[in-house]
Amino acid sequence: MTITPPALSVFESLESEVRSYCRSWPAVFDRAQGARLTDEDGHSYLDFFAGAGSLNYGHNNPVLKRALIDYIERDGITHGLDMATTAKRAFLETFENVILRPRDLPYKVMFPGPTGTNAVESALKLARKVKGRESVVSFTNAFHGMSLGSLAVTGNAFKRAGAGIPLVHGTPMPFDNYFDGQVPDFLWFERLLEDQGSGLNKPAAVIVETVQGEGGINVARAEWLRALQELCHRQDMLLIVDDIQMGCGRTGGFFSFEEAGIVPDIVTLSKSISGYGLPMSLCLFKGELDVWEPGEHNGTFRGNNPAFVTAAATLDAYWADGQMEKQTLARGEQVEQTLLAICGEEETAQFRGRGLVWGLEFTDPERASAVCKRAFELGLLLETSGPQSEVVKLLPPLTVTPEELDEGLRTLARSVRETA
Amino acid sequence: MTITPPALSVFESLESEVRSYCRSWPAVFDRAQGARLTDEDGHSYLDFFAGAGSLNYGHNNPVLKRALIDYIERDGITHGLDMATTAKRAFLETFENVILRPRDLPYKVMFPGPTGTNAVESALKLARKVKGRESVVSFTNAFHGMSLGSLAVTGNAFKRAGAGIPLVHGTPMPFDNYFDGQVPDFLWFERLLEDQGSGLNKPAAVIVETVQGEGGINVARAEWLRALQELCHRQDMLLIVDDIQMGCGRTGGFFSFEEAGIVPDIVTLSKSISGYGLPMSLCLFKGELDVWEPGEHNGTFRGNNPAFVTAAATLDAYWADGQMEKQTLARGEQVEQTLLAICGEEETAQFRGRGLVWGLEFTDPERASAVCKRAFELGLLLETSGPQSEVVKLLPPLTVTPEELDEGLRTLARSVRETA
Amino acid sequence: MTITPPALSVFESLESEVRSYCRSWPAVFDRAQGARLTDEDGHSYLDFFAGAGSLNYGHNNPVLKRALIDYIERDGITHGLDMATTAKRAFLETFENVILRPRDLPYKVMFPGPTGTNAVESALKLARKVKGRESVVSFTNAFHGMSLGSLAVTGNAFKRAGAGIPLVHGTPMPFDNYFDGQVPDFLWFERLLEDQGSGLNKPAAVIVETVQGEGGINVARAEWLRALQELCHRQDMLLIVDDIQMGCGRTGGFFSFEEAGIVPDIVTLSKSISGYGLPMSLCLFKGELDVWEPGEHNGTFRGNNPAFVTAAATLDAYWADGQMEKQTLARGEQVEQTLLAICGEEETAQFRGRGLVWGLEFTDPERASAVCKRAFELGLLLETSGPQSEVVKLLPPLTVTPEELDEGLRTLARSVRETA
Amino acid sequence: MTITPPALSVFESLESEVRSYCRSWPAVFDRAQGARLTDEDGHSYLDFFAGAGSLNYGHNNPVLKRALIDYIERDGITHGLDMATTAKRAFLETFENVILRPRDLPYKVMFPGPTGTNAVESALKLARKVKGRESVVSFTNAFHGMSLGSLAVTGNAFKRAGAGIPLVHGTPMPFDNYFDGQVPDFLWFERLLEDQGSGLNKPAAVIVETVQGEGGINVARAEWLRALQELCHRQDMLLIVDDIQMGCGRTGGFFSFEEAGIVPDIVTLSKSISGYGLPMSLCLFKGELDVWEPGEHNGTFRGNNPAFVTAAATLDAYWADGQMEKQTLARGEQVEQTLLAICGEEETAQFRGRGLVWGLEFTDPERASAVCKRAFELGLLLETSGPQSEVVKLLPPLTVTPEELDEGLRTLARSVRETA
Repeated sequence: MTITPPALSVFESLESEVRSYCRSWPAVFDRAQGARLTDEDGHSYLDFFAGAGSLNYGHNNPVLKRALIDYIERDGITHGLDMATTAKRAFLETFENVILRPRDLPYKVMFPGPTGTNAVESALKLARKVKGRESVVSFTNAFHGMSLGSLAVTGNAFKRAGAGIPLVHGTPMPFDNYFDGQVPDFLWFERLLEDQGSGLNKPAAVIVETVQGEGGINVARAEWLRALQELCHRQDMLLIVDDIQMGCGRTGGFFSFEEAGIVPDIVTLSKSISGYGLPMSLCLFKGELDVWEPGEHNGTFRGNNPAFVTAAATLDAYWADGQMEKQTLARGEQVEQTLLAICGEEETAQFRGRGLVWGLEFTDPERASAVCKRAFELGLLLETSGPQSEVVKLLPPLTVTPEELDEGLRTLARSVRETA
Repeated sequence: MTITPPALSVFESLESEVRSYCRSWPAVFDRAQGARLTDEDGHSYLDFFAGAGSLNYGHNNPVLKRALIDYIERDGITHGLDMATTAKRAFLETFENVILRPRDLPYKVMFPGPTGTNAVESALKLARKVKGRESVVSFTNAFHGMSLGSLAVTGNAFKRAGAGIPLVHGTPMPFDNYFDGQVPDFLWFERLLEDQGSGLNKPAAVIVETVQGEGGINVARAEWLRALQELCHRQDMLLIVDDIQMGCGRTGGFFSFEEAGIVPDIVTLSKSISGYGLPMSLCLFKGELDVWEPGEHNGTFRGNNPAFVTAAATLDAYWADGQMEKQTLARGEQVEQTLLAICGEEETAQFRGRGLVWGLEFTDPERASAVCKRAFELGLLLETSGPQSEVVKLLPPLTVTPEELDEGLRTLARSVRETA
Repeated sequence: MTITPPALSVFESLESEVRSYCRSWPAVFDRAQGARLTDEDGHSYLDFFAGAGSLNYGHNNPVLKRALIDYIERDGITHGLDMATTAKRAFLETFENVILRPRDLPYKVMFPGPTGTNAVESALKLARKVKGRESVVSFTNAFHGMSLGSLAVTGNAFKRAGAGIPLVHGTPMPFDNYFDGQVPDFLWFERLLEDQGSGLNKPAAVIVETVQGEGGINVARAEWLRALQELCHRQDMLLIVDDIQMGCGRTGGFFSFEEAGIVPDIVTLSKSISGYGLPMSLCLFKGELDVWEPGEHNGTFRGNNPAFVTAAATLDAYWADGQMEKQTLARGEQVEQTLLAICGEEETAQFRGRGLVWGLEFTDPERASAVCKRAFELGLLLETSGPQSEVVKLLPPLTVTPEELDEGLRTLARSVRETA
Repeated sequence: MTITPPALSVFESLESEVRSYCRSWPAVFDRAQGARLTDEDGHSYLDFFAGAGSLNYGHNNPVLKRALIDYIERDGITHGLDMATTAKRAFLETFENVILRPRDLPYKVMFPGPTGTNAVESALKLARKVKGRESVVSFTNAFHGMSLGSLAVTGNAFKRAGAGIPLVHGTPMPFDNYFDGQVPDFLWFERLLEDQGSGLNKPAAVIVETVQGEGGINVARAEWLRALQELCHRQDMLLIVDDIQMGCGRTGGFFSFEEAGIVPDIVTLSKSISGYGLPMSLCLFKGELDVWEPGEHNGTFRGNNPAFVTAAATLDAYWADGQMEKQTLARGEQVEQTLLAICGEEETAQFRGRGLVWGLEFTDPERASAVCKRAFELGLLLETSGPQSEVVKLLPPLTVTPEELDEGLRTLARSVRETA
């Protein structure tokens, strides 16, 4: 009798070895609504991952879905490069009225291409052009993207090695609390800048995440961010806040830097800006930095108009008042309570976070993976982060209900217990 | 009486100076269908630009639109990173069955992020990893994208300067016919490779467009492409065909390199791969080159599932038989006849092209811009290309009707006459 | 009556503006012997500068002079590239017998060209070849030379800017005591190396001076050097000691690192290695690192045979026993006593040093220059160093007599007083 | 009976594997005079290599020797950094009076360190500073030195690989006759410069040798050099002539570019400038380019005063009238006649050259090495050059007598015959 080995799925036979999430979550997903995905076998999963922060308003949010379908139905412009369109105008006006003006933010808006790394590349180009210097300072465990410009300011050694060329023009500095308080903030960075013999190439800019998502949910304190802004002013460097994962309400306010009261020179947004998981990104910068020549940076998918439609809808629906922020902070407290309890039981774990982004770090990196694996079996999507994948990352949709949150947190606690 | 100056539009007041197409085409577009756009004042425009090659199947193609709305309606996964989804599987299977297998192409498929420059960055990374060398050869007047890796192999001096850092690890070689036949093909390139004293850093790969779109509609001959492939084999370099603008049927066959009978080691696709103008790109490579580690290259919007749905629909609708290719070639002949006539009347013009991509070059670069400006006034969208913007580029949807094509070509001819 | 302005000297009219020492010391020097120079007007100057450390045995040392003239008289090979010569053999044998063997140092000897920067360039090349990595770590305020490879690991911002290209592939780390003891040694460096998310490109090697001469006479402690060596071993990086200025007895022992009991993987020597101020340099490395191919690094003046002759003579005359080291340490104590007294009187000054290299730092950088200027008027040659030129550097010949030393130190003390 | 293997010489046991000439010429040289060296066993060798062009006036030239010994005897300054000295002044005045003024050359003089690569590094720095661009164009098979700046504009792949980092900021262009006349001069280079889409980074400068010594004795025609100068002027690039090997009379005139009637913006000199094989180099540049800040480029051995003494003596002795040039051209004709005869007999050989630098190229690269090996056995020193070491290089001292020249040429002819 001949045994026929089961056919390889097309994912295994045709898709490149580079695929990764599908390895951790061996299911074929079919539909999704709010905080839940359903696979083709009808199993349901609670999503505490939210498209790596791209689905702050949940999957296929009904408000946005309506606007999106209406737009497609009526043959609105889909692909618009950087032509003027009614959808783009509506987005710009809403963004100005709902986001920029109430916060008194003096920004021009650039559509640099639809992905986060497009936004980061454009931010770095602009900073270098304005200052006439090549070097940019980033921070330990930063993540800014996979194209060569962004990768050069990203910390992860494995990702960096993928470049195939030496990544230069960037220098890492210690992120907040990198030395557990042993060293005064900015001691090293400031000394290098002030010392004409230090060997540091004078930076055009500093690029920072207020909370490092991929880096392990490292939360910069407000006073650290303010001191960084002051250092940038003193040393004639531009401050770029990469708010791709932490912006759009993830930490509470629309921008993650609002709480610190700083006004970065350049801000990048992507992930949840369209609200529906559609590719879109923005690069914002102070008006006086708008030294671009027409077409100096371009790209085919800068004008993803369906994304503009859902983006404008999110602003109208969620940001016209302060409800969203309040709710996020309340949900965050709910998470914090559970993590406190978990870490009370499990000594090798500690947690940190802000708003609705939290990390649960284990002394043993294997443990974090085991927790995520067990959670998946129990129907909860969770990812690890950090240089050793030692942190379980909690990133539920901001629209998660208290009940869903409670359900997910109970599954997390159970997964921790069952992997002890 | 006080005259109030008209308020600046939000495009002028809020959007960055980097915007460009909206300057050439001062209208606010609202809807589109097939080969026509309509602005908010109800004016209709015939589109011979097709989203810079992203709308080969026309705007809001009804077949694709139906599939897209159905998918959204039923809450199909929108944002999927690189999770396995039913939409992705359907696309992969269709791509294999309709495109790869009939052409006997031995490729693995990578989803490198949704834009062309993501695909190029991943292709360059992979080539460097496989060969362990940094240098990549590109061609004069090449265009591969705006992120730093892609920009380093792009020719345009103005775009390059935007990098703000010296762009290195790339060397340009003469594209086909760069010297109007005065110099044997590859004489310079091959000599540099063979001469151990030449000073050329040995390249990992060569990246080429079969027809340079942004570079001025420069068409490589089939024999030149074959000789390039042979040179790559002889000199242990990978051959990357960037088919982002010329693939998906633009030149007739699905891949632009089919006609030459070559099999590149790596192929990039984007623009019209989704068919609906939705951001999507692919990097294809021979199976033995699939040395990626899981997650070595990643990105948030790799899994734009609505795009997978429309992409699969285009393959089913247009590529299951040879009709599309035949039709494109027929339409191309129609264009060629008109260009022949125009150049008969206008001595300072000459033309070139393949399939449905054509260029009309003027001795005086100002003239090309004038022609496009006049065409716009007459309701036809046309863009220039080439290093001096000296070429009027014709890039109508492949689905354009003979009547629309005729209408547009007549407008073009009139614009040429009226700008003489 | 017309007054004719004095003719510009040929130095001013013909020599480039890059000239510098001749500006601080406006005299035309003619002859020199031991610790004294004489200008063309017959004025005598005591030399506490010693050719920036190239004249440890004094000017035109009679023992070496005899050997040199004999060699020239008998038509010994002058220019020998890397041919075998009797003079080179004699040097190699003496170097092995007098220097390497008694210290149990496992080094091969390379003649990389006659200047310090040639030696550093060869050391960096070798380290990169051995480890297959590009990056090299240097220290704040390091000085390693002016050619591009060496300049990239040099700290001084003014010199770095001269490169005209971005200097990359190097990262500065804090030298010993850079934070006045506020921060544990190597905290930053080690953390970056251990953290896979730090963003530091893994270094092939670390290059260090045991005492930074140009950087301001910063003295690394023996325990710091030992800890650095351990860190290099632990992290698979090569340790390069640049002993160009501090070697050849300047700090007491022949190599400046002997006192710390470390054995660097690679050592560079130049300046006083020939003993007579003739251009010569060496690159020493452990035998297992000798992976050079024949001719992989070369240079026209590698075989400066007259320098080999005087070099061998210095080893025979000064290093066959321990007298030289003892004498240097004794002279050093003499200097230390005076500096102690000066700093007792002058509160804004502090001093540091080892062997016969000492620095007197002033809070006000202008003061250091004023002291050197006054000293010159009083017949003493002294140079400043440090990033702000805030340190008066004492570098007398090792062969200085106690009386000369006393005379010079008295002049220094007077210069300090008179510039208060 | 135990057989003791012969002890390794110290060259083999202690010197690095990088040594190379001593491998081709297995003798230990002891003395030298004029065109002859003597090894320690008393064998005499005729020198057609002349220290790779550093001994144009022969070994230990008596006129220079006298001046050198006198200077040393009277304790003249040996090591002077860039202090003003009487020896330096004498050299500068002589250089101005004998070399610059009679040729109407508008140069300032810089002492960049004593080796050729120091001079090239300073030339590149200056060009980049003046033009504010990073890129420099060099030519196929160029050789400019081994430090990183110079190596980046050097052609040899083996030497380049030694860098251990990617060598960037340089682009090779075809040297004169690189395509045996198939391609118009500068077609490729000029086209790249003029085409704004070419992808060539606009160069700050072009660096060229008039005759490529290491590259295989490739002789640029005067008209090619003139056209290159014109191209540089037209395209705002500085022209750097690296005259390190071909200057100081090697091709006839003092500068090798005199014959072409060009005036480079920057000129490097080294090798035979001291005349005695002592390390020395110069960087000359037009006065308006002298934008150096004091000390912006420096180096320990810039003031090798004994070399200034012999350098001034060569100018007085050989360049005060036109005799030297005339004699060199006459000797060159003598060489040419012999090479003509050799190539008449040996069909696989061809020759080329100018003044007293000639190359005899063989179709089979092994043959060139065999000829040099046989010549050594017959007492004649000859080296190969070219990317495949396929060229026997003739570089006798300019002071060689007709009889010595005849003797050497006869040995060469015999070596060619005996290796057939």
